[in-house]
Amino acid sequence: MLNDVSSPTPEHTTYSDRAAALWRMVQDKTPLIQCLTNTVVQPLTANMLIAGGAAPAMVDVVGEADVFAAIASGVLINLGTVAPSQQDAMPEAAQAAHDNGTPWVLDPVAIGALPVRTALAHRLLDFSPTVVRGNASEIIALAGGVGGRGVDSTASVEEAADAAQAVSQITGGVVAVSGEIDLITDGFRRIQCENGTPMLTQITGAGCSLGAYIAAFVAAGDDPLLATAAAHACFGIAGEQAAAQAKGPGSFGVSLLDELSLLDEETIRARARLS
Amino acid sequence: MLNDVSSPTPEHTTYSDRAAALWRMVQDKTPLIQCLTNTVVQPLTANMLIAGGAAPAMVDVVGEADVFAAIASGVLINLGTVAPSQQDAMPEAAQAAHDNGTPWVLDPVAIGALPVRTALAHRLLDFSPTVVRGNASEIIALAGGVGGRGVDSTASVEEAADAAQAVSQITGGVVAVSGEIDLITDGFRRIQCENGTPMLTQITGAGCSLGAYIAAFVAAGDDPLLATAAAHACFGIAGEQAAAQAKGPGSFGVSLLDELSLLDEETIRARARLS
Amino acid sequence: MLNDVSSPTPEHTTYSDRAAALWRMVQDKTPLIQCLTNTVVQPLTANMLIAGGAAPAMVDVVGEADVFAAIASGVLINLGTVAPSQQDAMPEAAQAAHDNGTPWVLDPVAIGALPVRTALAHRLLDFSPTVVRGNASEIIALAGGVGGRGVDSTASVEEAADAAQAVSQITGGVVAVSGEIDLITDGFRRIQCENGTPMLTQITGAGCSLGAYIAAFVAAGDDPLLATAAAHACFGIAGEQAAAQAKGPGSFGVSLLDELSLLDEETIRARARLS
Repeated sequence: MLNDVSSPTPEHTTYSDRAAALWRMVQDKTPLIQCLTNTVVQPLTANMLIAGGAAPAMVDVVGEADVFAAIASGVLINLGTVAPSQQDAMPEAAQAAHDNGTPWVLDPVAIGALPVRTALAHRLLDFSPTVVRGNASEIIALAGGVGGRGVDSTASVEEAADAAQAVSQITGGVVAVSGEIDLITDGFRRIQCENGTPMLTQITGAGCSLGAYIAAFVAAGDDPLLATAAAHACFGIAGEQAAAQAKGPGSFGVSLLDELSLLDEETIRARARLS
Repeated sequence: MLNDVSSPTPEHTTYSDRAAALWRMVQDKTPLIQCLTNTVVQPLTANMLIAGGAAPAMVDVVGEADVFAAIASGVLINLGTVAPSQQDAMPEAAQAAHDNGTPWVLDPVAIGALPVRTALAHRLLDFSPTVVRGNASEIIALAGGVGGRGVDSTASVEEAADAAQAVSQITGGVVAVSGEIDLITDGFRRIQCENGTPMLTQITGAGCSLGAYIAAFVAAGDDPLLATAAAHACFGIAGEQAAAQAKGPGSFGVSLLDELSLLDEETIRARARLS
Repeated sequence: MLNDVSSPTPEHTTYSDRAAALWRMVQDKTPLIQCLTNTVVQPLTANMLIAGGAAPAMVDVVGEADVFAAIASGVLINLGTVAPSQQDAMPEAAQAAHDNGTPWVLDPVAIGALPVRTALAHRLLDFSPTVVRGNASEIIALAGGVGGRGVDSTASVEEAADAAQAVSQITGGVVAVSGEIDLITDGFRRIQCENGTPMLTQITGAGCSLGAYIAAFVAAGDDPLLATAAAHACFGIAGEQAAAQAKGPGSFGVSLLDELSLLDEETIRARARLS
């Protein structure tokens, strides 16, 4: 264990060690993650969770969403395709998670211009999500600003820093803004993650799957801020390793699952870029 | 044709030959399999059916589910994500399958703790599924016992043997309990299948796809017990061959489809482990 | 620029050049394609669009479908799994696309024998789809004839030529009949595309993804007939290149995405088979 004071890069070292330790906790606990998520990314999300050491369960209907949120280790609510049935089940799950102390992650996909999900996202804020994860446009829209163009962000992460702070004050939880450099804050502390690869934007569902992966880390750990940052780093490292061997987005998606399942603490400690 | 009495391993040989013959019948008939299944596994299930020699059709809305069940070769009803629309369409399809003599498979995913699907599963039993396929916890819950933790079984296959017998007496059909060693029974005869690999639990939807693959074999063959056992063996063999070359769950999923499409009778006869 | 009259294969050359130019326009414009499509093929469709240079957005709920169709570059409406929510959202999107001049593609999957989607398809024709894409049985059914067996066509492309003409006169738009040789017509002109591989029928969702890919080309180009033909050629070329290296349908699906992302104008000019 390096001494934080004498080490030349203390924060990097500390965060990397903690990221590796959190990854280990996920492997040891196999947290059960309930996902109410969009139909486009359900297969990838489930496979990412398994490869990452967690157990997925897509329980998203009224009358079951609350029952399961009470017993799950963590919950993801992702607004990517909000069919009426999910519109009803999501507040049910969020309330049950909130009432039972189950950590939960909100991913407000493409809110801003789209009215149904925007109203739903604001309604879900009442149930104090442990983590909100989105791109810059989504976080700005959640804070009350103007949103982006569909699922792609038109704002930069830095432009969303104030919005992240504002959302964090509403929820009392963590807010993560994904981008070239990810910003993770709980309103007081702020961690940046530089892991990742542009290839993650060349397949559908990487960001959405990251939301579920964050839920697994938050479920396994004690500190949601660190857990969220660790999830970003581990996911980004797997992405970097997959990109190094991929011919295109098809083989990248395959390798991403392989690499996520092959992660180990030594690699995380060596490659995590958290500050 | 070997003589069952004089052969040193008569049952193995017989079952393997029959499994190979049933696989051939699927290839020759290209059974059309209607799937009312969960949204997480639809892509894999459709691709597995095609790779396995069948033709998939995901017809799962009210007003079409019954029309199609009357003309399909076989039907799969899988309770993994029971949106209200599917809750209505499933009994419609089951009744039409029952009334028209279309063989159908029930996969009662994660019943037990989850009330909506548990009630639905028991209601569907009235339409006499040709085959019920589940893990040990699910079969125990279907027989009236206590279920497991989400989609993963907490009970062993052997513990579910009595429950399988009980469910078989209710339906008059075949019950398959998936696990390290699969148990397939029609209440009188009992076949065990030792094919498979732990990698099949490292991707989402392998078990669910097996349910559809069983429907194809039952549709193509005459004896649902043997057809169900043959489907388990062929699926397991493809899994074993994929695992031998996979780096992780991503490449395993890719190879599983490749290997399923490359199966042949000789390989099935040599590798099927049915007893 | 070759002279069409003196060139030994004038039409091939011209169409190939135009296909390459249209592909370039898709890359440069990154059209935003809204998909209301079936849950089986959503992941592949989204990944195909990204690999092909477009941006996908699966916005398919009432109250958002119209908002998004007004701002999207193009819209795909595919009737593969028409849950009640989609049955309501599809006319909403079609009307908004029509009223706002957004080009849109209708894929009437498996209409004919299935009543809900057949009625829906005819209702959607009122909103003048820019392109209708289907197999021979589907186009014949849309023109008022007898349909096929589920998702697979039982009629030949040539048998559907009159039906394509008839549908084109109803919509005033382009009709594409997919098959071994694809037929694309606007009721006056007729283009054939010979690119492709039987492997494209060995994975689920290739045809459905082609529908979205067509929407991207139509959105980027000026001439819907040429854009539709170019999309068929580019998609078919990527399929041919993927088939040359695939071991089976699993690796074919992976390579198809890789090859689509690696296409370039030179390859398209050399390999497009349009006449």
